[in-house]
Amino acid sequence: MNKISFIGGGSFGTALAVLLSKKGSECSVWCHSESTVNDINIKRENTKYLKGIAIPEKVTAYGDLEETIENSNIIVLAVPSKAIREISKKVEPFLKGDEIIVTVAKGIENHTLKRMSEIIEDEIKGHPIVVLSGPSHAEEVAMNIPTTVTVSSKDMKAAKKIQDVFSNNTFRVYTNNDLIGVEIGGAFKNIIALAAGISDGIGYGDNTKAALMTRGMSEIIRVGTKLSGKAETFYGLTGMGDLIVTCTSMHSRNRRAGILIGSGKTMEEAIKEIGMVVEGIEAVKAFHELKSKTDVDMPITTALYEVLFKGKNAKECVTKLMGRKYKDENNEL
Amino acid sequence: MNKISFIGGGSFGTALAVLLSKKGSECSVWCHSESTVNDINIKRENTKYLKGIAIPEKVTAYGDLEETIENSNIIVLAVPSKAIREISKKVEPFLKGDEIIVTVAKGIENHTLKRMSEIIEDEIKGHPIVVLSGPSHAEEVAMNIPTTVTVSSKDMKAAKKIQDVFSNNTFRVYTNNDLIGVEIGGAFKNIIALAAGISDGIGYGDNTKAALMTRGMSEIIRVGTKLSGKAETFYGLTGMGDLIVTCTSMHSRNRRAGILIGSGKTMEEAIKEIGMVVEGIEAVKAFHELKSKTDVDMPITTALYEVLFKGKNAKECVTKLMGRKYKDENNEL
Repeated sequence: MNKISFIGGGSFGTALAVLLSKKGSECSVWCHSESTVNDINIKRENTKYLKGIAIPEKVTAYGDLEETIENSNIIVLAVPSKAIREISKKVEPFLKGDEIIVTVAKGIENHTLKRMSEIIEDEIKGHPIVVLSGPSHAEEVAMNIPTTVTVSSKDMKAAKKIQDVFSNNTFRVYTNNDLIGVEIGGAFKNIIALAAGISDGIGYGDNTKAALMTRGMSEIIRVGTKLSGKAETFYGLTGMGDLIVTCTSMHSRNRRAGILIGSGKTMEEAIKEIGMVVEGIEAVKAFHELKSKTDVDMPITTALYEVLFKGKNAKECVTKLMGRKYKDENNEL
Repeated sequence: MNKISFIGGGSFGTALAVLLSKKGSECSVWCHSESTVNDINIKRENTKYLKGIAIPEKVTAYGDLEETIENSNIIVLAVPSKAIREISKKVEPFLKGDEIIVTVAKGIENHTLKRMSEIIEDEIKGHPIVVLSGPSHAEEVAMNIPTTVTVSSKDMKAAKKIQDVFSNNTFRVYTNNDLIGVEIGGAFKNIIALAAGISDGIGYGDNTKAALMTRGMSEIIRVGTKLSGKAETFYGLTGMGDLIVTCTSMHSRNRRAGILIGSGKTMEEAIKEIGMVVEGIEAVKAFHELKSKTDVDMPITTALYEVLFKGKNAKECVTKLMGRKYKDENNEL
């Protein structure tokens, strides 16, 4: 039998624990806050991050990392991307040697510009690292709404093991050996979701957003293939699929943050109102840094950077994006 | 000055007439029903198809085709795809010789399996034919919400002329010389929108729909490239862009029809409730016929055909689609 520990009791970690415990695995969840530990163990509901979902008895929450990890063969890192390095360092001393590390965090690190799996590899040596990504809002995963995700790894045997353990009738896991493509698509799509949200917040329509998303896909592919990801991966679940769900669903924090900014709030006000981490804002910072190190054109990322960090007017920036002077679709930038 | 006539006073024809008359063109609109003629000319509103939008004085509606077309240099066919051949036949005798014919209808003809531009070419000889397509709900176009579309033609000089005449600050027109790709993407996306609507109607979530749309894109590309369209066109405004807007917007009749079917109504009941043409249903018929003539795998089209015309259960079909037995994303069908 598998014992799976989740490092992070946020919405997605909790949803996966609910899913996998129902499938028969013993699940432990490490939570940063004591109130979430009590919520899960006593109220059997994560009232802060996954309201309304009953948590099975096979899920136990802990405040102590060593207790959480003990006897686990699979360890899922489910913290914000910014915390991945620190949590990897903290997890490492408690590992026995053959545990598979799974990450569901999406982003690239500021300054080092490393992907999540690279950061974990820096801090945890000798373990297979599997990335899980795709269009999978936690709320729907926990409600058994049909969902598909992709796993990728340098060690595809470990990825296949995760596929076997995590798959059920409504949660379907595919493999894809393009690790770079899977990670870059997952990180970058949050930038486009912010932009889509801003367009919605300004009061623009479905036509506008669809155009922005289409152009966003082009931007993802330009950046991602430059970083050696495969174009077909960006057209798959972890690229286009996740982009669609993040840009159109009200479950998406990135989109919701964008809506607030588009309707006139500052970045700080938006972050405060969302009350959870807005990965897209970190991603804008990182990819903007990447832009200055490569020669890839990133008009959407650049526009967002100016809105978020240089105080530029959001409406003017979206209007400028919509009005760029290219006339032939195939020669588009 | 241009005089532009619109053959068909539905929502998109009316919206374009509003847009272009504001830009200074004289616009005439041929309407099938006398009440729409009166609505436009007297009430200055198309109450049936484009409620709430004021129609400028430069737009005149007619019940007579010859009067509508007289002195026009651009003729826009804005009727359902099923009516394109018949209307082309009716328009032809009134042409002087150098008019540009524009079609905004999307679909392929049953039995002949011809694209819109091919049908028009059968019936109207010696005129440039331009296809206009992209994510452009009429309601938003008429409200000056930023919108982008693509024009394509065998005669790219004519396409560029339409680009010049139709473009303004909020309605941006791109050119693309891949006529086949533009037409096939526009026709096929209605099938995926029906499927997406059915998923919504069943009560499935954003995760499910994003997965279906991603798989739908693969299906469009398989079919479209087989018919000699270019893959990059399907990733552009007339493919992915239009797919997104059609699958996610409540403006989309195809999606709304799907929602009704997914929630248990028959195809006939859904069509009646929508009260306008549901292009996706025609497209399912045509592409299903195409499937039997090619060896392209079309799981979504096939599933829809069985739901719409063979009485199969919609929920079972979507569940089957989600559960197809392939495990590696790159070897997906």
